[in-house]
Amino acid sequence: MFNFLFPILFYKSFTKEKRLYSFLKNLLGFYPNNIEYYKQALRHKSASNVIIKGVKDSNERLEFLGDAILSTVIANYLYSKFPLKDEGFLTKMRSRIVSRDSINRLSKKLGLPEFVETVKHNNIISKSYEGDALEALIGAVFMDFGYKKTEHFIVNRLVNIHLNMDEIEHTEIDFKSRVIEYSHKEKKSFEFVVDQEGGKGHSDYYKISLFIGSEKVSEGMGKSKKSAEQQASEKYCKELIII
Amino acid sequence: MFNFLFPILFYKSFTKEKRLYSFLKNLLGFYPNNIEYYKQALRHKSASNVIIKGVKDSNERLEFLGDAILSTVIANYLYSKFPLKDEGFLTKMRSRIVSRDSINRLSKKLGLPEFVETVKHNNIISKSYEGDALEALIGAVFMDFGYKKTEHFIVNRLVNIHLNMDEIEHTEIDFKSRVIEYSHKEKKSFEFVVDQEGGKGHSDYYKISLFIGSEKVSEGMGKSKKSAEQQASEKYCKELIII
Repeated sequence: MFNFLFPILFYKSFTKEKRLYSFLKNLLGFYPNNIEYYKQALRHKSASNVIIKGVKDSNERLEFLGDAILSTVIANYLYSKFPLKDEGFLTKMRSRIVSRDSINRLSKKLGLPEFVETVKHNNIISKSYEGDALEALIGAVFMDFGYKKTEHFIVNRLVNIHLNMDEIEHTEIDFKSRVIEYSHKEKKSFEFVVDQEGGKGHSDYYKISLFIGSEKVSEGMGKSKKSAEQQASEKYCKELIII
Repeated sequence: MFNFLFPILFYKSFTKEKRLYSFLKNLLGFYPNNIEYYKQALRHKSASNVIIKGVKDSNERLEFLGDAILSTVIANYLYSKFPLKDEGFLTKMRSRIVSRDSINRLSKKLGLPEFVETVKHNNIISKSYEGDALEALIGAVFMDFGYKKTEHFIVNRLVNIHLNMDEIEHTEIDFKSRVIEYSHKEKKSFEFVVDQEGGKGHSDYYKISLFIGSEKVSEGMGKSKKSAEQQASEKYCKELIII
């Protein structure tokens, strides 16, 4: 039995590793040096084992590192690309680029989730595991090759290919749509209730409450119903970390 | 008159620049290459001039860059120094090291504020200008020499000389003292008022409000008065960004 299974298992794990190598070569533009960093980067905490003195072999430490490196590389990229913009603009652009939502989407676009090792408990796994894995992968490249090569990978293989700066600059996030999408997915009702309306002419204002199911989850104020709804939605999105 | 003043002014500006060079050589361990980066890093926004298309020659853009680089270098330093600690520990240590308070103190210790160009409006200038200048200086080193040399400067000239990891790990920040210190400085009264006291034995709890002047600024809960006060103080400190 063992003699019979061994070549199959060996072949399976060999093929899996070969696929990972080829995926990484395609993504990074070069072969990994130490594959162990990348395997760890693609191991979600749900699939991790304790290896030594309580430390797990999951991707959380690499994610901590990669998150910082991504932030620095993007800061430097924006600093050079927009020499005439102030730090407020640079901060806004960076937070849009490295937001949970943006990194999750990028990770999916790259096909990374397919390679992430997870174990579903009760079929629940946080959606952010996709972006976490991308950040951890950046940490792995940094550990394997250092800053320069990681910067090159981020700028040339991620930013230049997948991000459109004009779009990022000019797209205002539609938080209300996010809330509607979320409530559909969670099979909950949503309602915006006008609490206060006041003023005349240009001093009009609206105070609006957002209810998800029967629970009031946030409030927003604005000069129009639309802007008050947008503010209430933004607060709730930030609370849920769905942006 | 002009002929008489010119050599004096020239000599003054020459001496100032010479002092800056020698200060930087001492601090960095090497002479700057392009001094303009450092001059900009040491120019507070209060002393800045508009140079082109609304962009100022103050240190805010370099501060944005330096803040990110410092965060990455410290992340990498902690990642390597504590291979057996989880990302929660790494995050906590980094936030203590790069906190506003810690960076302000480090900047003063290095003697940086003396070289920062500021213009006091009504004698008020935010205290954080000291730490901002240090972050901007890190941005200047990065622009002048790249990542590797900046990392070397941060680790060998700042961390290894001025920071004690054991102390940082074990010192709990005394937020109550910070609030007291702050209220003294602002010449305002402070008061902790117990709103609720409940339970018996180990289920005791306290809910406490912090008043600065006549305004209630925060609330805290805890199993002892001390911990409830500490929590209320911490919330207020974070709001004020005095940590």
